[in-house]
Amino acid sequence: MAKYVYDFTEGNRNLKDLLGGKGANLAEMTNLGLPVPPGFTITTDACRHYLAEGDQPDGLEQEVAGHLDALEAAMGRKLGQADDPLLVSVRSGAKFSMPGMMETVLNIGLNDESVHGLAKQAGGNDRFAWDSYRRLIQMFGKTVLGIDGDLFEEALDRLKGRRLDTDLSAGELQRLVETFKAIVRDQTGTDFPADPREQMRLAILAVFDSWNAPRAILYRRQERIPADLGTAVNVVAMVFGNVGNDSGTGVAFTRDPGSGHQGIYGDYLQNAQGEDVVAGIRNTIPLEELENIDRRSYDELLQIMETLENHYKDLCDIEFTIERGKLWMLQTRVGKRTAAAAFRIATQLVDQGLITLDEAVTRVTGDQLAQLMFPRFDAAAEKKKIAKGMNASPGAAVGKAVFSSARAVELAERGEDVILVRRETNPDDLAGMIAAKGILTSRGGKTSHAAVVARGMGKTCVCGAEELEVATGERRFTAPGGVVVSEGEVISIDGTSGEVYLGEVPVVASEVVEYFEGAEPDGELVKAVDRIMRHADEVRRLGIRANADTPEDAARARRFGARGIGLCRTEHMFLGERRQLVEDLVLATTDEERRQALDALEPLQKSDFAAIFRAMDGNPVTIRLIDPPLHEFLPDIVELSVRVATEEATDKDRKLLAAVKRLHEQNPMLGLRGVRLGLVIPGLFDMQVRAIAEAAKEVRGARPEIMIPLVATVQELEAVREESARILAEVGVEALIGTMIEVPRAALTAGQIAEAAEFFSFGTNDLTQMAWGFSRDDVEAAFFSQYLDLGIFGVSPFESLDRDGVGRLVAIAVREGRAARPDLHIGICGEHGGDPDSVHFCHEVGMDYVSCSPFRIPVARLEAGRAALAETDSDTR
Amino acid sequence: MAKYVYDFTEGNRNLKDLLGGKGANLAEMTNLGLPVPPGFTITTDACRHYLAEGDQPDGLEQEVAGHLDALEAAMGRKLGQADDPLLVSVRSGAKFSMPGMMETVLNIGLNDESVHGLAKQAGGNDRFAWDSYRRLIQMFGKTVLGIDGDLFEEALDRLKGRRLDTDLSAGELQRLVETFKAIVRDQTGTDFPADPREQMRLAILAVFDSWNAPRAILYRRQERIPADLGTAVNVVAMVFGNVGNDSGTGVAFTRDPGSGHQGIYGDYLQNAQGEDVVAGIRNTIPLEELENIDRRSYDELLQIMETLENHYKDLCDIEFTIERGKLWMLQTRVGKRTAAAAFRIATQLVDQGLITLDEAVTRVTGDQLAQLMFPRFDAAAEKKKIAKGMNASPGAAVGKAVFSSARAVELAERGEDVILVRRETNPDDLAGMIAAKGILTSRGGKTSHAAVVARGMGKTCVCGAEELEVATGERRFTAPGGVVVSEGEVISIDGTSGEVYLGEVPVVASEVVEYFEGAEPDGELVKAVDRIMRHADEVRRLGIRANADTPEDAARARRFGARGIGLCRTEHMFLGERRQLVEDLVLATTDEERRQALDALEPLQKSDFAAIFRAMDGNPVTIRLIDPPLHEFLPDIVELSVRVATEEATDKDRKLLAAVKRLHEQNPMLGLRGVRLGLVIPGLFDMQVRAIAEAAKEVRGARPEIMIPLVATVQELEAVREESARILAEVGVEALIGTMIEVPRAALTAGQIAEAAEFFSFGTNDLTQMAWGFSRDDVEAAFFSQYLDLGIFGVSPFESLDRDGVGRLVAIAVREGRAARPDLHIGICGEHGGDPDSVHFCHEVGMDYVSCSPFRIPVARLEAGRAALAETDSDTR
Repeated sequence: MAKYVYDFTEGNRNLKDLLGGKGANLAEMTNLGLPVPPGFTITTDACRHYLAEGDQPDGLEQEVAGHLDALEAAMGRKLGQADDPLLVSVRSGAKFSMPGMMETVLNIGLNDESVHGLAKQAGGNDRFAWDSYRRLIQMFGKTVLGIDGDLFEEALDRLKGRRLDTDLSAGELQRLVETFKAIVRDQTGTDFPADPREQMRLAILAVFDSWNAPRAILYRRQERIPADLGTAVNVVAMVFGNVGNDSGTGVAFTRDPGSGHQGIYGDYLQNAQGEDVVAGIRNTIPLEELENIDRRSYDELLQIMETLENHYKDLCDIEFTIERGKLWMLQTRVGKRTAAAAFRIATQLVDQGLITLDEAVTRVTGDQLAQLMFPRFDAAAEKKKIAKGMNASPGAAVGKAVFSSARAVELAERGEDVILVRRETNPDDLAGMIAAKGILTSRGGKTSHAAVVARGMGKTCVCGAEELEVATGERRFTAPGGVVVSEGEVISIDGTSGEVYLGEVPVVASEVVEYFEGAEPDGELVKAVDRIMRHADEVRRLGIRANADTPEDAARARRFGARGIGLCRTEHMFLGERRQLVEDLVLATTDEERRQALDALEPLQKSDFAAIFRAMDGNPVTIRLIDPPLHEFLPDIVELSVRVATEEATDKDRKLLAAVKRLHEQNPMLGLRGVRLGLVIPGLFDMQVRAIAEAAKEVRGARPEIMIPLVATVQELEAVREESARILAEVGVEALIGTMIEVPRAALTAGQIAEAAEFFSFGTNDLTQMAWGFSRDDVEAAFFSQYLDLGIFGVSPFESLDRDGVGRLVAIAVREGRAARPDLHIGICGEHGGDPDSVHFCHEVGMDYVSCSPFRIPVARLEAGRAALAETDSDTR
Repeated sequence: MAKYVYDFTEGNRNLKDLLGGKGANLAEMTNLGLPVPPGFTITTDACRHYLAEGDQPDGLEQEVAGHLDALEAAMGRKLGQADDPLLVSVRSGAKFSMPGMMETVLNIGLNDESVHGLAKQAGGNDRFAWDSYRRLIQMFGKTVLGIDGDLFEEALDRLKGRRLDTDLSAGELQRLVETFKAIVRDQTGTDFPADPREQMRLAILAVFDSWNAPRAILYRRQERIPADLGTAVNVVAMVFGNVGNDSGTGVAFTRDPGSGHQGIYGDYLQNAQGEDVVAGIRNTIPLEELENIDRRSYDELLQIMETLENHYKDLCDIEFTIERGKLWMLQTRVGKRTAAAAFRIATQLVDQGLITLDEAVTRVTGDQLAQLMFPRFDAAAEKKKIAKGMNASPGAAVGKAVFSSARAVELAERGEDVILVRRETNPDDLAGMIAAKGILTSRGGKTSHAAVVARGMGKTCVCGAEELEVATGERRFTAPGGVVVSEGEVISIDGTSGEVYLGEVPVVASEVVEYFEGAEPDGELVKAVDRIMRHADEVRRLGIRANADTPEDAARARRFGARGIGLCRTEHMFLGERRQLVEDLVLATTDEERRQALDALEPLQKSDFAAIFRAMDGNPVTIRLIDPPLHEFLPDIVELSVRVATEEATDKDRKLLAAVKRLHEQNPMLGLRGVRLGLVIPGLFDMQVRAIAEAAKEVRGARPEIMIPLVATVQELEAVREESARILAEVGVEALIGTMIEVPRAALTAGQIAEAAEFFSFGTNDLTQMAWGFSRDDVEAAFFSQYLDLGIFGVSPFESLDRDGVGRLVAIAVREGRAARPDLHIGICGEHGGDPDSVHFCHEVGMDYVSCSPFRIPVARLEAGRAALAETDSDTR
């Protein structure tokens, strides 16, 4: 028969799939001999069975009863025993932490009889006992019986009047229990169950059911936690920190989660339960002071913390309770930490001999590294903090507060830095968001429109700063304490911490960036980063290239660690003064005129390429032939139409308007661009290939790779390839010729395309656009925030590569491309190349390299290393 | 050892893969005992080996030599023997006919000695012998030696002056041979090979090489013939129809390819070779007259024709030659025929007991049926034909000739019918092409811009009418005989025949359409169609539905044979006067205003749906919820901007402009539409679902199916499905809820989506757009004609479903959808549902039905039947 219940003595921390995180760690501590209240865990298997079949698996009730019997025997008390009751808590605990999403019921076992026994246990503390009893009914009523929680809250409020909870007497609480029982009877038609075992049974099922509560489903969608894991249920003997001053509860960290330094970090609250700490009803005291209150428990706690850190080989966070001088461990887990602490702790643990450098690399993340690379406000500067919101998009931004999109655009055009302040943003604010240095809103969370769009733009954003009252009409906001900020006043916002400051706060560059730029490693953090990056570089299998269009970007990319350019876009070379030449090309009506326009562009392109080849000094440079539709280089159709209609238009304007109208497309993303341009406009690609070849001939060691964009069928590639190969041979230069895989059909026919391509580079931006049918320009601002709120997806597919859809296309193309041409060189050059999860995907699917923007290169290096290590130890992520 | 050469006595007609079409049929006739000149076939295997390895397979030369020895023995002459030479032709012959694409060399075996022997054989006809010799050198020089053919032509022209070929004397031809030999020496540095066996060896290799000539590659791409088949080579003893009046050559059909009637159909030319018939140097005589010239041969030919038709059980076309009273069969194959003849012949053969009804269905095609459904010009009417061009897009169109796109639009707006006449069209002409009833060009072939775009629009087009001189500037064209047509004069064009008429020709409806509309079958053709359609309906497995948005279309679809609506678009119900309500919806700034707009729409939608349910009388109706972006219902942004900038604009104009700007999208195809609208605009889909449910409740037997468009992820579908199911339950109506599969990601995650969908309907228009990255509105007119010319594809992927790319997505979705939900109902509602090849694909992939526009339903029924029959006999297509 299947085993559905594990005593804490039977489990261990590797059984998180089965026992959930909380249960597995309670078992681990139990087996380390630490003082954990006895208890047992009902497995996720049981939950899954219940959810699928609508009923508990056979034998589960008997198994639970047996474990409860053993628990009673160990504690020497029976559940709900009238004179000396055992009480238990029933707590959810899934594999992945889902804070606040699921249910817990405390004080199971109380009823009209055992409440008196509890008072006796607590040294005659009647008030404590009745308060515990009313909490049970309230929690049980809401969670297990599904009664609207406001009914209990309102009854409590009526009783309290203007007093605090703690001012209620035992008698008042006893009457409240009666009121609560009446509410239960009234709402459900039956009495609150007095039978302790029935209480427990119902609570367990309620925890199971809470897995499928709407908020839990939504949370899982957003966090991309699989829907079918189920939760475990922990039944734990109650211990009480709130039975007097020789009791209390606290949290502790084995080292400082902010700095990573070793020491005593934590908070303690005398005569309190765990939830009181969270609720902040009284001020906690620093953990060190426990030494003076209860020396024995304090010493024991320190001993346990050392044991845990040595055992887990990492920073642990701990919840504990002291009940009348006896220390109990209620929870432990590997603790969260700041980005800087993560790097410091990882290297410290190496130095302590607790972990290897391999392990150290897996202990930090690319997201943490990225956080360390943002500029930040000078910690030493004087700052006037006026509010705190959510850290929606990191960075530090300073500018004049403005309250409308139009005003943001207006001031930005004058060269002024602005922060766009809105109650909340919507798609109409897009222009203002683009113009602003940062965005501040008083409403909305991390999936609000402002947050999603700002992250998409890489722009600093603080959202949901609810203390602010934003008066858009009056162009000002009011912060707590009556601080009024009117349009034009300077504010500073910290997107990493969520803090808002009055006035200009000086910004300092990241020391980590300075290190990547070439500064000697100095300071503990930078040395830790240096050590971990060096090791990541040693273990990674993926090569790292950069997306860079200019010699300056190319040079920075090399400093940051790129060993090649994976995407050099040539269209940027047609902007500025050269726009004129593109206009000439478009307006050309004869072959001769077109030839002239192309001839004028060729030497300019050649010198562009030569400069990049020099900057990359012998590293490969993948140059993408021109991709966007030609009308992108021409004036906007609406503006030009209005100008021609309203002003004295020149002959050229009219010609240009005719051309703009002719080239106008309903859906330029899916129009005449990429290889299609190359096939339809005679000489365009030839000019570019010749410029590349001539430049490569001039720069010693240049390694050009010619990349054809938007190929959908091998015939397109063959036609261009043939002509390009001819030109290369003519100039006497060698270069790989390959293609972007950015159109779904190219991925689906990769076996055919590989016959004509020496390399593939996945353009996952376009591939995502076409696979999902999302025009990024349009949809991200229009409805992604709503999609995230609805849980349609947990993260934008433009941020992190969508494995099921886009990833499947990539995997097909890698597999079938390599089958057709085993030495096919394969990389990615979409923005996903710098996203941690996506880098792991690229590693797993067997690409040769990732290419990303220069600033993301360190992230890609680190994650490539982590991906290689994850392959040998799939449990580390 | 592999066998690379087959004597004609060894092959048969089933060996087309190996022997090519010509070789297989020559072998078949040989084995029927018909008088075929002896010869042998070198297989496509040998060709493939040669093309892959660059060398003949081992043993091929010896095998050829052995077969030549046998041929010489049978003929009693040796190849090129001086006094009595055997001559042979070396002819290409691939599996699929590629007319004019590949090479043939006649008269192999002639040299300075054997030319005299030939003259002797021909009864002392020196002129004939020297003319044959110069033809050999000319053909061999050009084909085998790669000499520019113009050099020979120019030498011939210099000699001829203003005379005809036939005026040249034997002496002159002998001197011409010397001149030709000098050209060969001059161009290649070596002499024309006198050795007959060397001539043959080189000719065989030249035929192999011609498989990869650029024109052949292009042809194969366009006709979608696989590139790796290779060609067979036939070596055949020469027979001569040009050695006197007791000789001649002719073509014959076993029945009339125009009407299908049995009888004697063909042409004969006395004292001539095959190529002379094609070149049209003299007028042929009707085949019947051969009876008077050579009764014996005539009788023998009739006997052979009967044998062939009974043997092939189909219309055969035949090439024959009579050499001095002896009949020789040079080729036969199943002959091409008109659409009407195809239906007549198929049923006639059934009546003759030669084929079954199953076979009859496979003998006709959907394309032929479609041709019979176009209106045509009244055959009895008096017509003044002024030119003939290519039949680029079928139909009959009448209208005033106009010479510019702008003028076409102008007159069409006044309600006049126009024919757009251009030398050739380009993307600038698009508006005019849309406005015109038909398009006529004087340049360009069947893949020209005009042809491609017209076919895409289903608009009548005649292109490449080269006899016309189009003077666009002067707004007129000139036809042969000095006929001048000026702007405004009426012309009539026949897109089925390519003919152009002056004045208005009366158009008659198709009798086949009248039959489908319900007329009793009458007349031979309609009775044949009726019989074949009934049988196709019996054998087909695919169900047939219609794309119909109105009760009228729905009723027609039922008459045409649809048993359900597969796509009822609801957006068409928001046009006209209701546009106002959509504007209200878009301009709504409060929930209340939005609610009001939706409430106003609901009863209108309900009555729309009720009317369609009534028209479909118990057949299922799949209703797609609103799909296009809302700005499609609003004024154009350019027009509105100009109006607001230049005129006294109303307040509403300004509000509307703001809304249009807000909703404006860079790529609306990939923007806020379909299910995204439903999720983002509260109440929109609910209103539609409620209208459907209320209508279904009202109409007895209504079978609504609710289809959600543009789903990319199962989460979208789940969200809408839940709400829709609630509304259906509320109203108390049952309906399937399913989804379009039109976004690539939906196909790639079909297993997940099927969990929430009761049916899939493939929207292959959008799926093609996204899989290829083609916005149909933009790219079809902009560059598809160039793509077809370049051989990038052989047919637009919007016309015929692209099996490799889009088809792969469909196949994945069908397989994985059914795996997740075995009873998933699956169909297609893109335009491909009415395309013959695509219907076969849908059958093969296992769909339940195809849905197409009402007019294509008969085509879909027929092809569905053919697909079912092709499954059991894969050789019939």
